[in-house]
Amino acid sequence: MGGAWERLLPRLTEIRDLSCALALLSWDQHVMMPARGAPARARTMATIESLLHERVAAPEVGELLSELEQTPPEDEARVASVTVLRRDHERAIKVPEDLVRAIAEHQSRCFQSWTEARAASDFDLLRADLERMISLKKQEADAIGHEGERYDALLDGFEPQMTTAEVETLFGDLVRGLKPLADAILDHAPERPAFLSDHYEVDRQEAFCQWLIETAGFDVSSGRLDRSPHPFTMHIGAGDVRQTTRYDPTDLLMSIRATMHETGHALYEQGLPEDLYDLPVGRIRSLGLHESQSRMWEIQVGLSRPFADFMLPHLKDRFPAQLGNLSPDEFYAGINHPRRSMIRVISDEVTYNLHIALRFELELALFRDELEVADLRDAFGDGMERHVGIRPESDAQGVLQDMHWAIGGLGYFPTYTLGTLYAAAFYARALEDLGDVSHDLRRGDVGRLLEWLRTNIHSTGSKAPGKEIAQRVLGTGLTVDPFLEHLRTKYGELYGPLA
Amino acid sequence: MGGAWERLLPRLTEIRDLSCALALLSWDQHVMMPARGAPARARTMATIESLLHERVAAPEVGELLSELEQTPPEDEARVASVTVLRRDHERAIKVPEDLVRAIAEHQSRCFQSWTEARAASDFDLLRADLERMISLKKQEADAIGHEGERYDALLDGFEPQMTTAEVETLFGDLVRGLKPLADAILDHAPERPAFLSDHYEVDRQEAFCQWLIETAGFDVSSGRLDRSPHPFTMHIGAGDVRQTTRYDPTDLLMSIRATMHETGHALYEQGLPEDLYDLPVGRIRSLGLHESQSRMWEIQVGLSRPFADFMLPHLKDRFPAQLGNLSPDEFYAGINHPRRSMIRVISDEVTYNLHIALRFELELALFRDELEVADLRDAFGDGMERHVGIRPESDAQGVLQDMHWAIGGLGYFPTYTLGTLYAAAFYARALEDLGDVSHDLRRGDVGRLLEWLRTNIHSTGSKAPGKEIAQRVLGTGLTVDPFLEHLRTKYGELYGPLA
Repeated sequence: MGGAWERLLPRLTEIRDLSCALALLSWDQHVMMPARGAPARARTMATIESLLHERVAAPEVGELLSELEQTPPEDEARVASVTVLRRDHERAIKVPEDLVRAIAEHQSRCFQSWTEARAASDFDLLRADLERMISLKKQEADAIGHEGERYDALLDGFEPQMTTAEVETLFGDLVRGLKPLADAILDHAPERPAFLSDHYEVDRQEAFCQWLIETAGFDVSSGRLDRSPHPFTMHIGAGDVRQTTRYDPTDLLMSIRATMHETGHALYEQGLPEDLYDLPVGRIRSLGLHESQSRMWEIQVGLSRPFADFMLPHLKDRFPAQLGNLSPDEFYAGINHPRRSMIRVISDEVTYNLHIALRFELELALFRDELEVADLRDAFGDGMERHVGIRPESDAQGVLQDMHWAIGGLGYFPTYTLGTLYAAAFYARALEDLGDVSHDLRRGDVGRLLEWLRTNIHSTGSKAPGKEIAQRVLGTGLTVDPFLEHLRTKYGELYGPLA
Repeated sequence: MGGAWERLLPRLTEIRDLSCALALLSWDQHVMMPARGAPARARTMATIESLLHERVAAPEVGELLSELEQTPPEDEARVASVTVLRRDHERAIKVPEDLVRAIAEHQSRCFQSWTEARAASDFDLLRADLERMISLKKQEADAIGHEGERYDALLDGFEPQMTTAEVETLFGDLVRGLKPLADAILDHAPERPAFLSDHYEVDRQEAFCQWLIETAGFDVSSGRLDRSPHPFTMHIGAGDVRQTTRYDPTDLLMSIRATMHETGHALYEQGLPEDLYDLPVGRIRSLGLHESQSRMWEIQVGLSRPFADFMLPHLKDRFPAQLGNLSPDEFYAGINHPRRSMIRVISDEVTYNLHIALRFELELALFRDELEVADLRDAFGDGMERHVGIRPESDAQGVLQDMHWAIGGLGYFPTYTLGTLYAAAFYARALEDLGDVSHDLRRGDVGRLLEWLRTNIHSTGSKAPGKEIAQRVLGTGLTVDPFLEHLRTKYGELYGPLA
């Protein structure tokens, strides 16, 4: 039976290379592709996706996996790869080919409707297509299987082995603690400093961000930073991790935060050990863990006092007219200035997770058949008022602001908050191990912190589900306390006692 | 039997989409990929190439083609697609899988050796790998089959149905006519004008080239222009044709010529009718025809007097210090200034095809077992002296200057000259149909010429082999006369009677 792994290998190679091709097709679609190339690109991606699905679902793969499950390989990474591939294989064979294709085809159509609906700020233009999307995703969830909670099947696609019940408990704790804290912080917030919306030439912002990613440890000989309307990070292949960011000439913080965020994702991908890379465990499956890395670099590092002190003189060099007279205190308070925002992606770290809590509630209600798509606009508005304290004045600023639902990314939103909670917990744990790192960060030296992440998180790949990896690092289950503590401390220092 | 085409269609879709994915992987490799992504990219491309080969070689494809050959479809494009796919299928099944893989793997290795050998300017560093490459390509040619002339099998891969004998005759005629003409032109050439090697800021050259491609009719909503060390054009998919160029701050002409050249290729690809695009006939197989389009836009248009007159004021706007005082006569004479160059890719239109004649001679001798790789360096030097009248002073400037042989592109070089000859013949024919176009070109209006090319050449795709398409357009076989006539007229006007 020693040959089962060797017989599986060429199949793993095909799966890996089809995934790499798909990753590049997707990166290019968002960063480089000319507008009129879109329809052909959608067709090409559907074909490659279908070849990939065929390979993962192949009966021979199921048989080889059974052999390997009966006589497991010696190597830990191979054992874990069998587990991961088994999971993919089961999900792939359970969903009928017709449904896979129907969802893939409807994604392009529904994304197009979303684009038009958002431009017209009219949810009615999306409604019918979104109804079909929700219906298809319900069928998919039922095909994958669940024990009564349909959302479990969707969540598991983004956060393996995490249950809806666990996430609901976390969100319950979070909202209970965060809502009053956020209100207190927002009550204490001063006027928004003018420097945040001064004019910052985009080319100079770009030069700064290119410098910033290298300072933060991103290896540009194995990656790139480009522009795209929605920042993202993609692992194209070994030695090729690409991140994107975006620039707004009247918002310096947008590019810095987005770049630090994506650098966190990218460092995770670049930190995968080479011997895992070609195996199924070399692809990161827990989006919560992935987001923990991006949030940590964006917030715990990027928005910290010592790193702000480090960045400021470099920013002054590039923008002397705008920032020349700014003190370190003013800069730090400014980049951490909170406000109630209509839009999730530009919201601050205080209110961000209230936006996510709303989305999770709505998704859950849709998949529990407690909410109709027809009522989504109002439910979104009501929820914004309840959670964030403001009501969207338009569909574009409200229910249409995110593309996730239109492209079938249902069950994805909660991983953003899981990432936030993990980030705070991991960072607290790292400081326990490393002691104070503020002296490092004030010099722009991220070496010890990055090394800690490499050792404790990056190097494990997907050898275990996210929550198990986190449990090992933290020595305990995930709670909302480190995150709430982080906010209380930070804003307590900034604004004094928060009543 | 009416169902054979319908059963073939999903296979054509897979073949098309795997080709599109491969095209993007290749474009990206040369334009975007970070350095350390190279090994994984090579593996991914080999996998996709092998999936593609499998699909083209599938026995079911052979059976469906036989059905369709017995009961041909009504539609002309489908009939031609059956012919084209039959040819690909036969080539694919004749070459053993092992040999395909050996060549694919050796390409990366041999390209690497070439890179190192050229950097060290030492042919000996490439010799062993090149010997293996030539040996593998001989095996491939013998596997494909030929009637005694091994080179036929290679040539046919780039120029379907053209024989070595035909090409030898053309090159014989060409060298006989061109050698004395080139000597006469070079004897009359004045000093090289200084403006050609002034300093031209790369960003401004790029802005000029972006403007130039649109002026020449390239649709930027279905394509891009980027930078790469070796300019090329690639059809990524419907609505997505990408060209690249290169910039040298001390050589304005390099980017203009390369951009006009690639624009010729790109206009050809953008001119394919939509109804052909998804079929095998929608991929252009005759590299001679392809090169005819690039050479025509580079030379017959780009280096013509009226187009030079059109470009000059636009260039003066961008480079007033360098070109402000230049007269149209000086500019035109300057951009057409010939000289004996060591390097093919920067050589002028007068001597360019003598460089190609040498390469064709050497390839032929190698495949006729009349020349050993060990003797290639000397044979190259001797040939340069005989054809171009100068001897390379180093391997880098001589036998190592082109990458073609190292990547197995044997049988490719002659298509460059076929392209030159076709370009001159087509252009003469276009002027017969359209009358004088110099008034159009002087305004930068390429509309009538492009329309003529669309109608007579672009729209046919690969419905027939290149030489048949050319025969239909020209009403006669290809000769060297229009090209020689073009040179005689142009340089006679520039320099007076050429003795």
